[in-house]
Amino acid sequence: MNPELETKLQHKIDTKTKPIGALGELERIAFQIGCIQQTESPKIEKPSVVVFAGDHGIATKGEVNPFPQEVTAQMVYNFVNGGAAINVFSNTNNLNLKIVDAGVNHKFPEELDIINAKIDFGTKNYQEEPAMTLAQCERAFKEGGAIISQLKNEGTNTVGFGEMGISNTSSAALLMAYFTKTPIAECVGSGTGLDGEGISKKQDILTEVFQKYDPQNALEALSVFGGFEIAMICGAILKAAELKMIIIIDGFIVTAALLAAQAINKTVLDYCIFAHNSNEKGHSKMLAFLKAKPLLSLGLRLGEGTGAALAIPLVQASVDFLNNMASFDTAGVSEETKESLV
Amino acid sequence: MNPELETKLQHKIDTKTKPIGALGELERIAFQIGCIQQTESPKIEKPSVVVFAGDHGIATKGEVNPFPQEVTAQMVYNFVNGGAAINVFSNTNNLNLKIVDAGVNHKFPEELDIINAKIDFGTKNYQEEPAMTLAQCERAFKEGGAIISQLKNEGTNTVGFGEMGISNTSSAALLMAYFTKTPIAECVGSGTGLDGEGISKKQDILTEVFQKYDPQNALEALSVFGGFEIAMICGAILKAAELKMIIIIDGFIVTAALLAAQAINKTVLDYCIFAHNSNEKGHSKMLAFLKAKPLLSLGLRLGEGTGAALAIPLVQASVDFLNNMASFDTAGVSEETKESLV
Repeated sequence: MNPELETKLQHKIDTKTKPIGALGELERIAFQIGCIQQTESPKIEKPSVVVFAGDHGIATKGEVNPFPQEVTAQMVYNFVNGGAAINVFSNTNNLNLKIVDAGVNHKFPEELDIINAKIDFGTKNYQEEPAMTLAQCERAFKEGGAIISQLKNEGTNTVGFGEMGISNTSSAALLMAYFTKTPIAECVGSGTGLDGEGISKKQDILTEVFQKYDPQNALEALSVFGGFEIAMICGAILKAAELKMIIIIDGFIVTAALLAAQAINKTVLDYCIFAHNSNEKGHSKMLAFLKAKPLLSLGLRLGEGTGAALAIPLVQASVDFLNNMASFDTAGVSEETKESLV
Repeated sequence: MNPELETKLQHKIDTKTKPIGALGELERIAFQIGCIQQTESPKIEKPSVVVFAGDHGIATKGEVNPFPQEVTAQMVYNFVNGGAAINVFSNTNNLNLKIVDAGVNHKFPEELDIINAKIDFGTKNYQEEPAMTLAQCERAFKEGGAIISQLKNEGTNTVGFGEMGISNTSSAALLMAYFTKTPIAECVGSGTGLDGEGISKKQDILTEVFQKYDPQNALEALSVFGGFEIAMICGAILKAAELKMIIIIDGFIVTAALLAAQAINKTVLDYCIFAHNSNEKGHSKMLAFLKAKPLLSLGLRLGEGTGAALAIPLVQASVDFLNNMASFDTAGVSEETKESLV
């Protein structure tokens, strides 16, 4: 809190050559970023998207996901080869893209251009045992934090989070139920494309899983429900907030990681910009729980950080208007006068 | 209509490495642009925003607008000097920006970097007489068309429309009432920032104006209700559709121009992408009338084409994913299998 800066920021926004409030959400974002960076002239530097990939034990049974588990590894190769949606949108918007192996069930060649932060070859199936140990979860936190520190050292001050992991909507649904106290059935959606019957089965399975455990805190919840990529994003978010970076939150899975992060440290929310409202069923309720207003609502349900990548030009535009628009004074434009209101 | 192309386009979209439909609105936009350009590999070329400025007779009385009429000319200078929101967003998103004097009540120096298409020094006040003559309206159409033809010749195939004109929400409200048959009071909003009392007075004034005339067609409606910039945008939209360009529709005033254009030639709608849902009161109803789904909803109410400029990266992203994403085949990613749905 810095009331003096806040007053100056609002004054700067209000004296730009436009009616007061006419840039809507972009004014809110400009104000937020000014507060994050504690300046009236904030900057977006080397905006990046980091995609964390991990596999999920439950996926091997094929009961909660229409795609086979191997697709996680195949998609990592697709990322490296530049063929996925997140590659395309990163190119469209000039974003620095990093891919992280947080725990894919595949041994990637060492020379592959990915960050190796593998905790294990996929989580355990939480139908039988916790997805990971507490020690693994802590390691995932640390790895996530280290990746963000490195990114900061390389000049990035704005980071969008993405993920890839067959079945990770199931983990996200379990975490949503835990952190928001929403009945688990309401947290379960179609993921990559289940039909009504598939969703119903997924609800039954996850209800059973949810009742099986009684995690006592955020770390335990992440450990039992997984996955590696979600725990790593949670650690990365905590570190990004600590480093006063601008955090761009993507869809259902990344928001699940944020639910855990804000349960650990509520102030992370001050650093978060919500990219979009995903079409995955639970996401709107997650956003409502966080009192978050997403920038986009395009019916996306792809993950990979695609929503974050698409929202970054709006974030850039917010900062740009704050820095580069003329004020009424400097432009010689008449300000609204009460007299002329008649 | 080209069913063969449509099938191919949909197949291309559906075999990209993503769940079917997972890119939401961007898939719809990619399909639409493929149809506009009649190709599976469409391109966005030299995307441009054209801002048409014009003055309104009613503004001189200061009864429907909190800003004085001179602000239109002042804002044109602000555009030329690069200080307005549309300048900033055009820079953010690498757009080619053109400013048109469609009828500002000011004599600009000849050397100023604007397109001189001035019809007159502002419209007449429709409280007393029609805003313009039919001949002036036809000239505005022609000028608008010529500007677009020139832009096409210079390599632009995607054009966003913007406007500036103190009091032009009043013209737009009158046109909305005429074309959508919505009661005029429901078409009237706060414009650049009227309060409740101001809006109520604006409603009374415009109700009287609306009842004073009985235009028989779109051209007559534009003539009596104005303004020059709206008529010119209408002509420009008609020409852009004729030239099979991608048309990006901005907010309340540009959509009013489109209401007239589609009343003249319904097929223009096939070429339109709706940038955003403006905060100006009538815009949502206009969009509903046109069955339009805007890409953004950011609470903007600035005009100038700012919504169009902000939406263009999403349009670019749509075309980019269609052209540059890998397919399941080429990427070696397993497609959804019914078997794995269990």
